[in-house]
Amino acid sequence: MRKKVLITGFDPFDKETVNPSWEAAKRLNGFETEEAIITAEQIPTVFRSALDTLRQAIQKHQPDIVICVGQAGGRMQITPERVAINLADARIPDNEGHQPIDEEISPDGPAAYWTRLPVKRMTAKMKEHGIPAAVSYTAGTFVCNYLFYGLMDHISRTSPHIRGGFIHIPYIPQQTIDKTAPSLSLDTIVRALRIAAVTAAQYDEDVKSPGGTLH
Amino acid sequence: MRKKVLITGFDPFDKETVNPSWEAAKRLNGFETEEAIITAEQIPTVFRSALDTLRQAIQKHQPDIVICVGQAGGRMQITPERVAINLADARIPDNEGHQPIDEEISPDGPAAYWTRLPVKRMTAKMKEHGIPAAVSYTAGTFVCNYLFYGLMDHISRTSPHIRGGFIHIPYIPQQTIDKTAPSLSLDTIVRALRIAAVTAAQYDEDVKSPGGTLH
Amino acid sequence: MRKKVLITGFDPFDKETVNPSWEAAKRLNGFETEEAIITAEQIPTVFRSALDTLRQAIQKHQPDIVICVGQAGGRMQITPERVAINLADARIPDNEGHQPIDEEISPDGPAAYWTRLPVKRMTAKMKEHGIPAAVSYTAGTFVCNYLFYGLMDHISRTSPHIRGGFIHIPYIPQQTIDKTAPSLSLDTIVRALRIAAVTAAQYDEDVKSPGGTLH
Amino acid sequence: MRKKVLITGFDPFDKETVNPSWEAAKRLNGFETEEAIITAEQIPTVFRSALDTLRQAIQKHQPDIVICVGQAGGRMQITPERVAINLADARIPDNEGHQPIDEEISPDGPAAYWTRLPVKRMTAKMKEHGIPAAVSYTAGTFVCNYLFYGLMDHISRTSPHIRGGFIHIPYIPQQTIDKTAPSLSLDTIVRALRIAAVTAAQYDEDVKSPGGTLH
Repeated sequence: MRKKVLITGFDPFDKETVNPSWEAAKRLNGFETEEAIITAEQIPTVFRSALDTLRQAIQKHQPDIVICVGQAGGRMQITPERVAINLADARIPDNEGHQPIDEEISPDGPAAYWTRLPVKRMTAKMKEHGIPAAVSYTAGTFVCNYLFYGLMDHISRTSPHIRGGFIHIPYIPQQTIDKTAPSLSLDTIVRALRIAAVTAAQYDEDVKSPGGTLH
Repeated sequence: MRKKVLITGFDPFDKETVNPSWEAAKRLNGFETEEAIITAEQIPTVFRSALDTLRQAIQKHQPDIVICVGQAGGRMQITPERVAINLADARIPDNEGHQPIDEEISPDGPAAYWTRLPVKRMTAKMKEHGIPAAVSYTAGTFVCNYLFYGLMDHISRTSPHIRGGFIHIPYIPQQTIDKTAPSLSLDTIVRALRIAAVTAAQYDEDVKSPGGTLH
Repeated sequence: MRKKVLITGFDPFDKETVNPSWEAAKRLNGFETEEAIITAEQIPTVFRSALDTLRQAIQKHQPDIVICVGQAGGRMQITPERVAINLADARIPDNEGHQPIDEEISPDGPAAYWTRLPVKRMTAKMKEHGIPAAVSYTAGTFVCNYLFYGLMDHISRTSPHIRGGFIHIPYIPQQTIDKTAPSLSLDTIVRALRIAAVTAAQYDEDVKSPGGTLH
Repeated sequence: MRKKVLITGFDPFDKETVNPSWEAAKRLNGFETEEAIITAEQIPTVFRSALDTLRQAIQKHQPDIVICVGQAGGRMQITPERVAINLADARIPDNEGHQPIDEEISPDGPAAYWTRLPVKRMTAKMKEHGIPAAVSYTAGTFVCNYLFYGLMDHISRTSPHIRGGFIHIPYIPQQTIDKTAPSLSLDTIVRALRIAAVTAAQYDEDVKSPGGTLH
């Protein structure tokens, strides 16, 4: 049976005028295959509001799968995240000026949640299609990790049938005009997220293949 | 009262002939100040044995503080780790040929442990002394994270008065002769670990200052 | 009057199965605007033959402008080259096994030639179109620099009305599946070279704006 | 017969409070072996004055060998430069506010000068001593390249018996506290320059071994 996939992207932050996560997510809104139908929603780069908005979107769309997407400026690959940690520690203020320091996201939640998405399969599938990808083991401690942890905490408490996860993506080329940083084109990112969504719809379980990072 | 600090380093792995973590740790063996006295032990880069060796060293030395140190080839800063995750996922075999894939380190342990060391203070102190340092939020999924998680699991179950943590360090220059990678001199690393040990001995609690990473 | 632009790309080298310079160049073959008409030719990654092939292509097409293009794996921007040096010093053998060491390309040629293309204008124009670009001051010492120097030496001796230059481009994404390296999509590279060709056709002279590198 | 080696370093620029080239050079002042005796002089990071100061130092010390040294922030190796180009193109103003754009350094000089130092030998010797090193083929277009070109132009016209060259060095650790950049310790840099000076004193000619860069 076809799975409903909710994909979210953030609004721009950290002096950027565009956020490739939302640019890519919105292009996938309404995309359908036999396995998956995608809906996209935008999330504010703001602690607390980010999670409120996500919960409302889940309430509204009743998805089988939730994939939150965020910009990881400086990375050169599409990086599905494996683990979310119970820590908000903001190096810069969010879009409303909040800057939590060493705060727990959920006071009675576990130290970390594992993604429920088949991140090794998704990564392998992207690479088969010529897209640079790697599993990541840290989503940072800013709003991206906050949303990822909050998503996993929410669905584990209220709707354990939903599978959730997070994907970090590089800058798009136009963002790197005045900095020296790697980028991937929006087309490549959109293709990567489409592959991720369909793979997540097709497979509940991940493949057991060597992976990991040395540090 | 003066604190006993156990510092561990690994033997060489991944085709290296030297491991800067052990080179640095052994130079600190016997170092004393008013606040701290350091003992060093070597740990094999082998899943399971690493932790057995560490437990024996803790049994033998009865330290107040344990700081495990490991090589993070490619990093350019001294990076105290904040979180250990319950996952062994080896990209390459360890020094005895074991290559666990997606295994839990402790089947009934939590998803993650936080360090008990004041990593922001340690980082700030290193920077005051002109040493590049940053808190890291991922220790990878190889033997370093395995030892870090295993240490925290062990002391939380058997000896919660011990405070433990992990520091990743860059290559030393001689390791980068035939690769293009950053390095720090052994002298700098030794100084950094000494500062870390003394700071950990002086302060139980960390300082609450902005930090974190965007991703 | 419309300018004839010859764009060349290389065949794959250094264990790659594709060379983005030729993939991009061949897509531009036959492209026309009011200012420029583009012809593409492939060049072997072989000392000597590379230059023979280029001279024949110039003879055949009688271009106004020649833009040679080569892969610079590891760069993250489109980088028009400013200077070619009279040195062949091969770190690896070329595609026919030649590995010249510290050889002059032209025994009675100057130590270096400046490009005749308006590289600052080209770079600025690419950036206006959202493409990461920067002027480069070294084309290396392998076949790319060899062809660039040989081109400039040839036209300065035989056909000074022709304006010539070289552009280095990054890997395309599919080349970075099994390495950690930045890339730009083929579409982005094709657009960049089209902008470069048209800009070179429109402007004989470069703009005088701040640029350069600190080292 | 023992060679007199003049080593120069620059004063700080680009918002830095220290320049590792001068910190290292001044530590070598007076250093003697059977082959070499080193004198150090400081050079201002200012177009024109840099060269005036260098010429006076040459006049005063009557060296056999001149090695100018400069900071290349972001590099991770000691990089003897092979070629100086006849171009001043400043991305930022120098320490007196001059910012030449696309200017020739010497209107009737050649497009480039080759170093007269045995840069491959020097690099190999540093690596034998465990120091990361590589020959570089671009000294940039700022005051470093200006001084290097000016040095070679001066001695080729007035004192061709003097052999000259340039070495770029990384940041030292203290400069990278608030940026993410590689560094080498001052001790390592001092050792590297000492090896460079002695090697240059011992060998007039370079070794013919594979080297070079692909781009």
